[in-house]
Amino acid sequence: MDIRSEIPARDIERFFSKALEFSASARSLILSQLAVGFEVKRKADKSFVTSADLRVEEYLRELIRRQFTGHGVIGEEFPPSNPGAAFQWVMDPIDGTEDFVHHVSTFGSILALHYRGLPLLGVIDHPALDLRVSAAFGLGTRKNGERVILTDLDPTAIDGSERVTLSARANFIKHRDDGALFDAVVRAHPNHRIYRSCYAHSLAAIGAVDAAIDYGEAIWDIAASQILLEEAGGKFTIVREWDTAAGRLYGVMMGKPAAVDRLARIFNQ
Amino acid sequence: MDIRSEIPARDIERFFSKALEFSASARSLILSQLAVGFEVKRKADKSFVTSADLRVEEYLRELIRRQFTGHGVIGEEFPPSNPGAAFQWVMDPIDGTEDFVHHVSTFGSILALHYRGLPLLGVIDHPALDLRVSAAFGLGTRKNGERVILTDLDPTAIDGSERVTLSARANFIKHRDDGALFDAVVRAHPNHRIYRSCYAHSLAAIGAVDAAIDYGEAIWDIAASQILLEEAGGKFTIVREWDTAAGRLYGVMMGKPAAVDRLARIFNQ
Repeated sequence: MDIRSEIPARDIERFFSKALEFSASARSLILSQLAVGFEVKRKADKSFVTSADLRVEEYLRELIRRQFTGHGVIGEEFPPSNPGAAFQWVMDPIDGTEDFVHHVSTFGSILALHYRGLPLLGVIDHPALDLRVSAAFGLGTRKNGERVILTDLDPTAIDGSERVTLSARANFIKHRDDGALFDAVVRAHPNHRIYRSCYAHSLAAIGAVDAAIDYGEAIWDIAASQILLEEAGGKFTIVREWDTAAGRLYGVMMGKPAAVDRLARIFNQ
Repeated sequence: MDIRSEIPARDIERFFSKALEFSASARSLILSQLAVGFEVKRKADKSFVTSADLRVEEYLRELIRRQFTGHGVIGEEFPPSNPGAAFQWVMDPIDGTEDFVHHVSTFGSILALHYRGLPLLGVIDHPALDLRVSAAFGLGTRKNGERVILTDLDPTAIDGSERVTLSARANFIKHRDDGALFDAVVRAHPNHRIYRSCYAHSLAAIGAVDAAIDYGEAIWDIAASQILLEEAGGKFTIVREWDTAAGRLYGVMMGKPAAVDRLARIFNQ
């Protein structure tokens, strides 16, 4: 039995409605930071962090603390709070910070609620694109509030022309020596795009691409994606996971089931 | 002497001001087509064309015919008009049609005016991003009306972490067997993005990426980019050109001069 069924539907609806409120508030804050400007720093691993990332995460943590005192929070920029709680909010306040810094519109804000490790709801918001993709357990996936249902590809018609997004090659070689996997995917699916942000996950959840591969990502990067895909009738699968000094990293695939299955075969060769 | 200097400055200003008007009109039409919907077809080469591409190009051609009767027009969807004229408007009404079809926001509308083969002005408009990048000879490059000046990279500090966009591998293997060039670039610059549209050119012109490579493109795909880059203090260079049954195709690079020079070295190895 799926332990998420233990949770009353009205609770899920309430959590979902609050998550959408939180996401809308985060969007306003992000847009105001873009307008007024923000400080940019490099972390030890040379990735970017801005005063906007910190402010948005603090703000979301405060909203959650006020509404859901006993819940835990896991975020990119601050240590976990209430790590033992059954309900855990997981967030990346600004995913694609390097693009955000350069005003490239594909960055997004990720917020999810997990229950005993299973995703209960997920929201990816793209402030600069006026695009919000959201889903909750049993309630379906929505693009700006409108229900999305994916139509699978005909597995016999798959010929490599499918629309696939993947991580940059940097992600395949930063922690592991998996450049050959990148090379195999770009050869098998030459009609690819690389966004370096959760925009790829959003596009897979709404069917605007057939499948997405993201590699070497942390829990907050992928926290919303499983429920977004599964509630749309898509498939989400973890194909690799490994531990680093900075925490556990994941390689994931998501999209229309037949397209994901083809990619999985490439990965398992 | 640059033959563009023959043209009175007030003429260039008038052409530029009209081009910005045309681009704004095209944006309105594109957004209305996105809202009401459009027909999608596949061309013989399996690329997409929509009723929106045709309507926008017809509309732009009509605007140009009324304002500049003696000028020529070269566009993706219809045969050239006035092919012998010194002034030639070159357009791709919707560049990134496959993304447009799927409501992926990076598509753009390209409009340029060339004088005896040299670019006089260029506009790339991104209706879904509220982003318009424009330039005219001697008048500088602008992002939504604000002047842009690129700062070059320090050539001694280039280490492969530069922000580079490139065409999908499909573009390198569709007409030529140049997959190895794609592979060399993604290895030398693992911090890459792939947009499959003129969004990459716009980002290079405003300095949001350091360099862009586009491969296997027609004249209307690249028509605006040289002037956008050069008026911003950047570099634009054609690295390959070849003829096909469908016309001449180009491989181009553009961006901050030091980043373009490094990419050119990879190409010439």
